Amino acid sequence: MQKKPLILVSNDDGIDAPGLYVLAKALKKFAEVKVVAPSIQQSAVGHAITVRTPLRAHEFRRDGEVFGYAVDGTPADSVKLGIRSILKSKPDLVVSGINDGLNTAVNVIYSGTVSAATEGTILGIPAIAVSLEYTQHPDFEPAAKVAATMARFVCRNGLPKDTILNINVPAIPAGKIKGVRFTRQGRSRWDDKFYQRKDPKNRNYYWLAGNMRILDHDGDVDQIALKDGFISVTPIHFDLTHRDFLEKMRREWEGKLKFKL
Amino acid sequence: MQKKPLILVSNDDGIDAPGLYVLAKALKKFAEVKVVAPSIQQSAVGHAITVRTPLRAHEFRRDGEVFGYAVDGTPADSVKLGIRSILKSKPDLVVSGINDGLNTAVNVIYSGTVSAATEGTILGIPAIAVSLEYTQHPDFEPAAKVAATMARFVCRNGLPKDTILNINVPAIPAGKIKGVRFTRQGRSRWDDKFYQRKDPKNRNYYWLAGNMRILDHDGDVDQIALKDGFISVTPIHFDLTHRDFLEKMRREWEGKLKFKL
Repeated sequence: MQKKPLILVSNDDGIDAPGLYVLAKALKKFAEVKVVAPSIQQSAVGHAITVRTPLRAHEFRRDGEVFGYAVDGTPADSVKLGIRSILKSKPDLVVSGINDGLNTAVNVIYSGTVSAATEGTILGIPAIAVSLEYTQHPDFEPAAKVAATMARFVCRNGLPKDTILNINVPAIPAGKIKGVRFTRQGRSRWDDKFYQRKDPKNRNYYWLAGNMRILDHDGDVDQIALKDGFISVTPIHFDLTHRDFLEKMRREWEGKLKFKL
Repeated sequence: MQKKPLILVSNDDGIDAPGLYVLAKALKKFAEVKVVAPSIQQSAVGHAITVRTPLRAHEFRRDGEVFGYAVDGTPADSVKLGIRSILKSKPDLVVSGINDGLNTAVNVIYSGTVSAATEGTILGIPAIAVSLEYTQHPDFEPAAKVAATMARFVCRNGLPKDTILNINVPAIPAGKIKGVRFTRQGRSRWDDKFYQRKDPKNRNYYWLAGNMRILDHDGDVDQIALKDGFISVTPIHFDLTHRDFLEKMRREWEGKLKFKL
């Protein structure tokens, strides 16, 4: 009999989030699962890590049993500490989620869910991030099945180095999901603004609000696949080099730029 | 006479950091400069933004004059609040730095300095991030001259949409700098580990330590350009799609993956 794969599960909604629980349960059907996740909600933390203060971790119990380790830090901290210190052996896969809200388009940059997966790949482990479109009463079961199928597939077939699968699932009944689309990250902008208000002592404060505006409308884009009723799977990586423009700079800027130091 | 460009300056080392001061001074020679920066050190925050609590900003004075606005938040918060609320008009450029330490290879992902620049491009403003190699007694003047030359060039010639110039300067005397290289982001790994210790109450805590290991040794890579005595300029963007692998997935995975929901 083949050995069960070892999967590290994390998220950014915190270790007590229902999306994490449903995900861990689905993965346990074929894998050994270790949960290491932030002790509290860590949305929009981006790829933050804690370098100036120490980290703490404690066992987190659920239904009378140890469910995992809660880390007083960010999603990236949790995965790093999990792989480097808490787990006895190197995991075969990192799965992050299930996030309560999509991580598509420009939001991928702010996403703590994606960041936990990213930290896995930085440490050389294949990784998957899973997010479910926000609704008031989310049903994480279909997204957990998607995550489990994909996790099992990746454990068998692998992923290229430094590659993350960013999976987003539409919040529609399972029977209405049309299938999977392999997509690219869409372009978008936040039409955000700050509400300026006064506190009880009459001092200013600012509160961020706004909407994401989609700039890409092709069917092969993450957001549009979801709108069309598909699960979106985007392979992402963290080689941020803008290669086309690098070529252009080398051709056209070389002679024009003069530095006097 | 042409109108002076308006430049928003930020960083992640905090509004009182010497690198920021030297940068602002150099840019003031040809531009109107507005400083909006975190009130305290924000290293390794990645692209975090504050969404769950309000933000505060206050005038920061230096040498008896208003130097800029200090924001009780992250670098990305500072740039967002600066552009959306504090500045009276849209800036022509965002410049972030000068960071006291390089932001190359995998560190670009963790970098608050790059994150401030990224937030500029997310809001549609061209942006530059500037970092100086760490030394005990840094001289920010050469890096400030590089930043000013590049800023002036970008104000005149523009940048493609969603593109950031990530500039890293070696910590060698100005006369020894050999010139500029247009580079790509290098591959690297952190050989990090956690020191596990006991606090005075005998409870465990973990402290992160480690070294970055360079995996790319070509001359066109950021780290190697610096080692060779050049200023490294890498154009980066935040379309994270791994396009080559996306093609492969479409060709090879389509039939193999079966989801039961």
